[in-house]
Amino acid sequence: MSLQMLKQQVLEANLALPRHQLVTFTWGNVSAIDRDSNQVAIKPSGVEYDNMTVEDIVVLDLESGRVIEGKKKPSSDTATHLALYRAFNDIGGIVHTHSRHATIWSQAGQDLPALGTTHADYFYGTIPCTRLMTEQEIVNDYEHNTGQVIIETFQSRGISPTDIPGVLINAHGPFAWGKDASAAVHNAVVLEEVAYMGIFSRQLKPAIDSMQKQLLDKHFLRKHGKNAYYGQ
Amino acid sequence: MSLQMLKQQVLEANLALPRHQLVTFTWGNVSAIDRDSNQVAIKPSGVEYDNMTVEDIVVLDLESGRVIEGKKKPSSDTATHLALYRAFNDIGGIVHTHSRHATIWSQAGQDLPALGTTHADYFYGTIPCTRLMTEQEIVNDYEHNTGQVIIETFQSRGISPTDIPGVLINAHGPFAWGKDASAAVHNAVVLEEVAYMGIFSRQLKPAIDSMQKQLLDKHFLRKHGKNAYYGQ
Amino acid sequence: MSLQMLKQQVLEANLALPRHQLVTFTWGNVSAIDRDSNQVAIKPSGVEYDNMTVEDIVVLDLESGRVIEGKKKPSSDTATHLALYRAFNDIGGIVHTHSRHATIWSQAGQDLPALGTTHADYFYGTIPCTRLMTEQEIVNDYEHNTGQVIIETFQSRGISPTDIPGVLINAHGPFAWGKDASAAVHNAVVLEEVAYMGIFSRQLKPAIDSMQKQLLDKHFLRKHGKNAYYGQ
Amino acid sequence: MSLQMLKQQVLEANLALPRHQLVTFTWGNVSAIDRDSNQVAIKPSGVEYDNMTVEDIVVLDLESGRVIEGKKKPSSDTATHLALYRAFNDIGGIVHTHSRHATIWSQAGQDLPALGTTHADYFYGTIPCTRLMTEQEIVNDYEHNTGQVIIETFQSRGISPTDIPGVLINAHGPFAWGKDASAAVHNAVVLEEVAYMGIFSRQLKPAIDSMQKQLLDKHFLRKHGKNAYYGQ
Repeated sequence: MSLQMLKQQVLEANLALPRHQLVTFTWGNVSAIDRDSNQVAIKPSGVEYDNMTVEDIVVLDLESGRVIEGKKKPSSDTATHLALYRAFNDIGGIVHTHSRHATIWSQAGQDLPALGTTHADYFYGTIPCTRLMTEQEIVNDYEHNTGQVIIETFQSRGISPTDIPGVLINAHGPFAWGKDASAAVHNAVVLEEVAYMGIFSRQLKPAIDSMQKQLLDKHFLRKHGKNAYYGQ
Repeated sequence: MSLQMLKQQVLEANLALPRHQLVTFTWGNVSAIDRDSNQVAIKPSGVEYDNMTVEDIVVLDLESGRVIEGKKKPSSDTATHLALYRAFNDIGGIVHTHSRHATIWSQAGQDLPALGTTHADYFYGTIPCTRLMTEQEIVNDYEHNTGQVIIETFQSRGISPTDIPGVLINAHGPFAWGKDASAAVHNAVVLEEVAYMGIFSRQLKPAIDSMQKQLLDKHFLRKHGKNAYYGQ
Repeated sequence: MSLQMLKQQVLEANLALPRHQLVTFTWGNVSAIDRDSNQVAIKPSGVEYDNMTVEDIVVLDLESGRVIEGKKKPSSDTATHLALYRAFNDIGGIVHTHSRHATIWSQAGQDLPALGTTHADYFYGTIPCTRLMTEQEIVNDYEHNTGQVIIETFQSRGISPTDIPGVLINAHGPFAWGKDASAAVHNAVVLEEVAYMGIFSRQLKPAIDSMQKQLLDKHFLRKHGKNAYYGQ
Repeated sequence: MSLQMLKQQVLEANLALPRHQLVTFTWGNVSAIDRDSNQVAIKPSGVEYDNMTVEDIVVLDLESGRVIEGKKKPSSDTATHLALYRAFNDIGGIVHTHSRHATIWSQAGQDLPALGTTHADYFYGTIPCTRLMTEQEIVNDYEHNTGQVIIETFQSRGISPTDIPGVLINAHGPFAWGKDASAAVHNAVVLEEVAYMGIFSRQLKPAIDSMQKQLLDKHFLRKHGKNAYYGQ
């Protein structure tokens, strides 16, 4: 993929955030990576979506984290994105938002269990919430450590980032990812949707727990993997 | 009715779903049946509403379930629709969505009682939630069995699908139906509306129970049946 | 006021309902009265807002309830409107909706107390919820009796319909009124707004009770009555 | 800054209120001050946003409170704005709304604690709710005393209005402020957003308390003060 095309995809995915009502002001950012060149394109920091153009998108080198192209400063969350691309080899796009209901679960510091097939169609089980960060992790290299604590969560719990393409950062908000920038935004929309429904499902049934394993398998696997039969 | 007209109605009813904010992405599908020819028209699987045309609508034979017309794969929920058309002879259109608040009741696995006249105007009593499906029902012929469990719910409880034109699938979401595709969408909107109000009516009054039988009768029967006097 | 002007005001007030998101489909109706001629103009029954024209508005005589002008059937709730105009001499417009949060209080069968200045600016105290109707009242002349039970609520509690321009019908939804059709819609919007805020104010503070009497006085009286000083 | 420019900024900030869904009807007002001339520009009382022009904006003298320019009556809340400008020397714009969720916290009479980084990015700790006003304060010079009780809240608790650019008025609604009219509106949007999320974060986790001090510091200080590194 050409660098221009990567930047264009990142621009379009960023512009999709307000359209899906996932962001207020500039509170969200999408990136994508070209795995051949290890180049990462990402939203500039604090720029309004209304005026953003493809020239504003910043390109960085995955390993060094240095800016290769673009005159603007990259998103302040860039170090988190880079950490995730380094650890999760199969993902091609990442999105971070403060979407209301996913953020509510983050603020409550709670995992979001799979409560129905909307969840099961995209997330193969509970979406984890990260542990609180230590003072050390917050003070030094905060954004990088935000990525590290996500990676630790997935590794220590044995969760595959392909099966569960999203996470809740404790007291912060969600990250979601996918094979490219557009898929990441798609998963961020789903995460927000199931976060909303989870709050009120638990209100109706306080003792609610994860859905049946067989139904989870059925729905995830009819959309994902080699036996998928959903779509054209 | 010509097949072309049936397809057109199904297209328009599908396009009404995002307009009524009942769907996110492609999560919903509407079908309709011509009872003379036993032909069922239904939304294709996984196609965006924005780009859908009448040519995308798939037509199947009710008995065999075989595609008669259309180049796309029909909705992955087609077998559920066919099962309902076979069992519920008086219905002409079916809609399935993951609309937020009806889905919340589904995820909680709870019946939605009639709490007020908005409900009584369209649903003549409690909207049932189906039982959990067995592993066997999920693994083999899942979508067909989803239909079967709906039919079982109505038959075992002695509910008429004309009196209660909708259902909540446990851990999944709602189906609604009506005399044609447009009426089915109408009922899906009402179901979502009363599902929303039911959550917060119960929040205000935790011990809330079904409304007075006489008021339910009055409202349902002033809009339905031979003594109806609502509308022009 | 000319009859044509009255009909035009009623049309515009009806069209304002969907714009203020107070109605789904045709679930709402506005009327207005000319007190000189005792003529009442009201929305036709079951007509979509999109296609409504001034010719659709039906005019009735207040005393006899007979249609004077218009080819359509008047709203099925007409008898409720007429009863209120007969009993509440100072009101000039009435609106009925099933707006979501006011209806939630109706379904819970609970009075909506004044919890803040948004409420106090328009409603001078608790907005009452009517008692359940008897079987007799429901079966015979239901819509007229709906009006009677509203009037009984205001009279038995000693509430002035000018001070409290709205009510919650038990298990049904809200009515609101005002000096004309437009003021009635305005009060219906306020009622919906304070109904929403009331639900979640009580969630945050379960023991919440009516606001300070002095603050209620201050806000209602700076907008209403001879010492008002709000607006131009 | 020219007076014309100040009025233009105040007009635009007022028009931003409905666009951010912070107001219903005319329930909100924005002002700004030119600190060189001590002139305050503010919205006129009870004027619809749709028809407002720069000529409608009223200009007052900070010390005397007298109208310098404009034919309309200033907002009924003007005395509150003036009191705040006199006491809080570093603020340049003020906004008052009845935005739904901030108002819910006001009605519950509760402080809104910092529960996540969305809050920490703009408010450096708990957003206070004022005490109830006395009968005397309500009856005499109510709007001025509303300002006084805000000032008392900040002074008695030792809160800096620059660190916490907003407040919840007990049984009323929020005020927010900033370096100019636009920044004040921005903070009002954030306040509404965190108020929403706070309600449901506490629903998920009833014992929820303020976030970690270190994370609060990190987020506030990466956007504010001399070590800020967010934005371009």
